[in-house]
Amino acid sequence: MPLESTIARRAARLSGPLHPDGGDAISFDSGYAFPGIFPDLTAQAQRVLTNYRSESLQYGAPFGLPELREWISRYLQTDGADVSFDEVLVVNGAKRGLELICKLFVEDGDAVVVTAPTYFTAIPILRSFGLTFLEVTQDGEGLDIDALARALERRQRQGLKPPKFIYDIPDFHNPTGITMSRRRREALLALASSAGIPIVEDSPYRRLRFEGVAEPSLKALDREGIVFALGTFSKLLAPGLRIGWISAPHAMLARMAQLKSDGGTCPLTQRIVLEFLKDGLLEDHIELARRTYATHRDRMVEALRRELPQAAFVAPHGGYYLWLKFPPGTDTSALAARAYDAGVSVIAGAAFFASDEADSIKGRGLAQGYMRVAYSRATPQEIDEGVKLLATCYRGMN
Amino acid sequence: MPLESTIARRAARLSGPLHPDGGDAISFDSGYAFPGIFPDLTAQAQRVLTNYRSESLQYGAPFGLPELREWISRYLQTDGADVSFDEVLVVNGAKRGLELICKLFVEDGDAVVVTAPTYFTAIPILRSFGLTFLEVTQDGEGLDIDALARALERRQRQGLKPPKFIYDIPDFHNPTGITMSRRRREALLALASSAGIPIVEDSPYRRLRFEGVAEPSLKALDREGIVFALGTFSKLLAPGLRIGWISAPHAMLARMAQLKSDGGTCPLTQRIVLEFLKDGLLEDHIELARRTYATHRDRMVEALRRELPQAAFVAPHGGYYLWLKFPPGTDTSALAARAYDAGVSVIAGAAFFASDEADSIKGRGLAQGYMRVAYSRATPQEIDEGVKLLATCYRGMN
Repeated sequence: MPLESTIARRAARLSGPLHPDGGDAISFDSGYAFPGIFPDLTAQAQRVLTNYRSESLQYGAPFGLPELREWISRYLQTDGADVSFDEVLVVNGAKRGLELICKLFVEDGDAVVVTAPTYFTAIPILRSFGLTFLEVTQDGEGLDIDALARALERRQRQGLKPPKFIYDIPDFHNPTGITMSRRRREALLALASSAGIPIVEDSPYRRLRFEGVAEPSLKALDREGIVFALGTFSKLLAPGLRIGWISAPHAMLARMAQLKSDGGTCPLTQRIVLEFLKDGLLEDHIELARRTYATHRDRMVEALRRELPQAAFVAPHGGYYLWLKFPPGTDTSALAARAYDAGVSVIAGAAFFASDEADSIKGRGLAQGYMRVAYSRATPQEIDEGVKLLATCYRGMN
Repeated sequence: MPLESTIARRAARLSGPLHPDGGDAISFDSGYAFPGIFPDLTAQAQRVLTNYRSESLQYGAPFGLPELREWISRYLQTDGADVSFDEVLVVNGAKRGLELICKLFVEDGDAVVVTAPTYFTAIPILRSFGLTFLEVTQDGEGLDIDALARALERRQRQGLKPPKFIYDIPDFHNPTGITMSRRRREALLALASSAGIPIVEDSPYRRLRFEGVAEPSLKALDREGIVFALGTFSKLLAPGLRIGWISAPHAMLARMAQLKSDGGTCPLTQRIVLEFLKDGLLEDHIELARRTYATHRDRMVEALRRELPQAAFVAPHGGYYLWLKFPPGTDTSALAARAYDAGVSVIAGAAFFASDEADSIKGRGLAQGYMRVAYSRATPQEIDEGVKLLATCYRGMN
């Protein structure tokens, strides 16, 4: 059957892991929310399904509920970005936003700039559009702009098209936890502008800052409309609602709205979010999330220093993750498999490196010593237990 | 900016209309549900957000809630299709299912078989993957299998690849209302099987039969696993929940699940649907929908015969739509524009024909005399008023 060959080709692009399901294991793997802080949305749902029944059970408008788009534009304005109502498109989660951006822009043979490592779920989405990866490393200030400039020049010398866009997570990067410095942000925007390459700023964790002062978002620094900002209520409120957004110039969004195949993002959950926002409950909820995840981070940092001092890391000032670096020679994929059998699920570093090319970081085996552990979902007690299990597995390999 | 040229090329594929928004007009345009029969889901939502809070507000599993997949497989079994639990993938609406099928199968240069006319929202989805269209007409028994066979042979003689799949709506076809006869279904399956071409059976209206006896679904007649069945709760329950499914061999679904960029279809609305089903409320609701839409159909049929006898149609035995054929020379696009200004929104026939090629039905101008009017959303009184307005506009053009 001719179909089989297509599928085989297509499946070959999908080496990224499925969203992992740890079963009964202690979960340090996915970027799940801590269930203990899920808000009580019964009053909002009751109101929506009574007062807004005709709206919330009907097909929704492609751009999203106008009131929600208004709220999101004000939210981004408060964060320093000059975003109007018509520059907000509501989507079924930020990942769906990334997919719509790809669907609008990408053609076969295109490349995308990603950090190495990058968000592991973004990799199969980008790969499913046939994108090749231009990987750039980070240091403590974020993406290495000089390295990016050199890579772009090299590409130009080779007669290759410029990459279609730059994908980055400048706040509490997934998986590294790094927040890009202000001067690095400005340098990235200047380089992207001069090279004519848009930036996709994926920023789910921005409000989950435990200490220190936020840098301006790339969107807020953008004067030329080259930043496509992806946002989500998954980390602000709850992932199960599946409400995210793209902020970009209206003409781009109008085309993306046409490409949405979902008959309008769920109007029921949009309205539930909106009622929660109008009830003025979001800021308190974010404060609760911040306090909770700060406690989880501290607990995991302490447990790792106590139980597994061989794992080096820089404690992040927000977000969900620690990015561990093990001593040379440690096979973290083997360690992750052992840990899973022992009852704690983690994600080995290799999954976060996009390119399998021989000259890539992953291809040269340099991704092997890393591991991402999420402190978001587990309880503090599970964090202690899980780190202990991980440490036991590590010792068993040495 | 190199981006602009990509977007221009991409946008050129999107000549299909946006989901129309009729504003204050009487709405005969979209396949919206009648708001008067939306169920009260407050009890289910209350229960879900209390008893299943951790599940419904967290990320969901890529395949969907296991209990919901179980229910859907039993539902399809009751309908004669031998579908197991692992042959059901929950998706964010049937259109998203069609997109995932394209995403898995389609390569540049591929063609798809569609009826002429076909579901107008499917056209931009298919087109966005670069598919070209092989259009086949229908008669009172559905898709013309002999014409399809000839078209496939012609393609083969020309050295072209076979189409990637056949897309059809065999029950209460959108827009024609035609239900495919049993022998035609068997002939379609035999032809598709011998040609090695899968069938995508999109069947949202199947249970909305007002009279007569259902034909077996293509999925029920399929012995070789070549039918991908798209289903949805949009027409069974409410569109705003955005819950649909694909039923297909598990190996195919596993790959589609990897391509879902939505972090799992909304677990909150999935669980609300499931609670409604477990409360045993679906059959009564479908019965109410059937009675309601039968009344709407009758009302529109009577109004058209009374006010606009120039519009010929075959009254369908179910579904949402009447497909009107006006006398030769009628420009239904101009009529639709006039009608919109007068306060009733309809969709001119041209939108339902996929191909703009000179030798296509649309290209030869044969689509011009048609119009789709939906009787689903408007009240009976609005149906009377809307048909009167449409008739006045028609007379004003002649």
